[in-house]
Amino acid sequence: MQSFEQLLKQFENHFSTRQFPAEPASLYDAAQYILSIGGKRVRPVLCLMGNELFDEIKPDAWHVATAIELFHNFTLIHDDIMDAAPLRRGKETVHALHGVNTAILAGDVTNAMAYDHLAQINTSIIQRVLFLFNKTSFQVCEGQQLDMDFETRDAVSFDEYVKMIELKTSVLLAASLKLGAMIGGASVGNTEHIYEYGRNLGIAFQVQDDYLDAFGDPAKFGKQVGGDIKANKKTFLMIHAMESASAQQRKQLAELIKTNPADKVEQVLSIFTSAGVDEWAMQLKNEYLEKAMKHLDDIAVMRIRKEPLKALAEFLVKREY
Amino acid sequence: MQSFEQLLKQFENHFSTRQFPAEPASLYDAAQYILSIGGKRVRPVLCLMGNELFDEIKPDAWHVATAIELFHNFTLIHDDIMDAAPLRRGKETVHALHGVNTAILAGDVTNAMAYDHLAQINTSIIQRVLFLFNKTSFQVCEGQQLDMDFETRDAVSFDEYVKMIELKTSVLLAASLKLGAMIGGASVGNTEHIYEYGRNLGIAFQVQDDYLDAFGDPAKFGKQVGGDIKANKKTFLMIHAMESASAQQRKQLAELIKTNPADKVEQVLSIFTSAGVDEWAMQLKNEYLEKAMKHLDDIAVMRIRKEPLKALAEFLVKREY
Repeated sequence: MQSFEQLLKQFENHFSTRQFPAEPASLYDAAQYILSIGGKRVRPVLCLMGNELFDEIKPDAWHVATAIELFHNFTLIHDDIMDAAPLRRGKETVHALHGVNTAILAGDVTNAMAYDHLAQINTSIIQRVLFLFNKTSFQVCEGQQLDMDFETRDAVSFDEYVKMIELKTSVLLAASLKLGAMIGGASVGNTEHIYEYGRNLGIAFQVQDDYLDAFGDPAKFGKQVGGDIKANKKTFLMIHAMESASAQQRKQLAELIKTNPADKVEQVLSIFTSAGVDEWAMQLKNEYLEKAMKHLDDIAVMRIRKEPLKALAEFLVKREY
Repeated sequence: MQSFEQLLKQFENHFSTRQFPAEPASLYDAAQYILSIGGKRVRPVLCLMGNELFDEIKPDAWHVATAIELFHNFTLIHDDIMDAAPLRRGKETVHALHGVNTAILAGDVTNAMAYDHLAQINTSIIQRVLFLFNKTSFQVCEGQQLDMDFETRDAVSFDEYVKMIELKTSVLLAASLKLGAMIGGASVGNTEHIYEYGRNLGIAFQVQDDYLDAFGDPAKFGKQVGGDIKANKKTFLMIHAMESASAQQRKQLAELIKTNPADKVEQVLSIFTSAGVDEWAMQLKNEYLEKAMKHLDDIAVMRIRKEPLKALAEFLVKREY
């Protein structure tokens, strides 16, 4: 059993070569660019871990892990266009550097390359892999659409927000694990448990992300604290505050969002704290983490094989950056 | 053996149901929209014809034909964004109606749906089908990128233009036929001949398209005659004129492109005619048509089976609209 870090090193090594043809360079250099500026490679490593939970890593897992990381980067390229984001991983986004048109195409070929890796796997499992991969692809697009739809809406309920996060973030983490498990020969029941482990962990991860953006230690958190508040982004914290704070506090929040004063971040954080949103978020995160761990427990393999996934879950949701 | 029209009717019937889930409607209605505004459905019917050239139509051919039409519409949605085109098939483009962001996602889910159909075919041919489909997907993107690159370049050679057209247009026609032929159980040699038939026919088709835009009969041609000239588009005619006309004529053309006078179309057409570009184009079209027909001849099946493809080729490149 290898740890996340050990498998990450192997995947980085595997993935560091150029993934695209040379010509036309105007297209493929743009696609290669986003791969070369890094990324945590969480998803492909989850695929490898999903495989290794059940059996030694098979050649197909490398193809599927690569396909997953390519797919993820395809969605990042297109999402960055939609969000008009100038930066990704501290570097210029693909569309900022190469223009929107080339970025659209760069996303499209990155996705095509993902399928070219999937096409190479054993035909005995290719259909199951493609169905889950495609389903996840739809869900990620649905999540992004809901996220955009929510931007223009005044009120978004907690349930709607969880659904959106699940689609936009969790299902790809869950599918990465399940695809690896399928390759590792897991039973249907076990693949469902590992999927649920990933889905719940993904939500816990997002709760932590939203929490850190508001209450993270600026010295440890890589990004600017309060970025979501400044951008009037809907987050677990803001949605819960709008649902649970006092009428007076809700009115204050609505006013702050509308008027955008210079000390908005401080004022919003003070409302969050007095409404107990910070404690609520930690509790919510732990609930999802517990659900994830329960599904990990229920997977019918030796306890020792689960250690790397257990350590990873704890690390991911306890990180301070 | 069925004619193009007979198979078109069957495909239209097959494809007229909704291809996407209901929710989120903001995403899937946008994706369904472009399918509902029509289209010639040439590519999926070519797939069915490719199958029927060798054997009766198999269930897989319907999945692959549907995948091809979905893929084609995915590229149209994204191309229309890149070209900032307000209209497609006389109706508003997806991005004009639903915004660029939703249009990017609508394209992405349309492509995902294409792969969901491919995932359903017989595992005995799924890898061959996926490899050709993916390869074609890369080529179509490369063609679109070259087309964009050429827009900002002063000079584009005839060979470069043919290569771009081949990638952007021909290879998908060729692949549609070849995918059908694979499903029909054609030998490798026969699948190569039908691919070359489609590739050459596609180029002949584009020559005819460029010709009609300049010299078409306004009463028969659906679009405004001279549209390419007005938009300073590089076409077979313009590129040949810039390569073969007299120094004096080339200077005149460059001046017309730069100054954009009100009678530009008339002046350019007059140069085209006196430089013999119209006759050259008809000859070029016939050369590609002959190459296509030669490959059709070389396919080792009974002559009578080839009649529908022969009739289609003649119709496509002799049409006046």
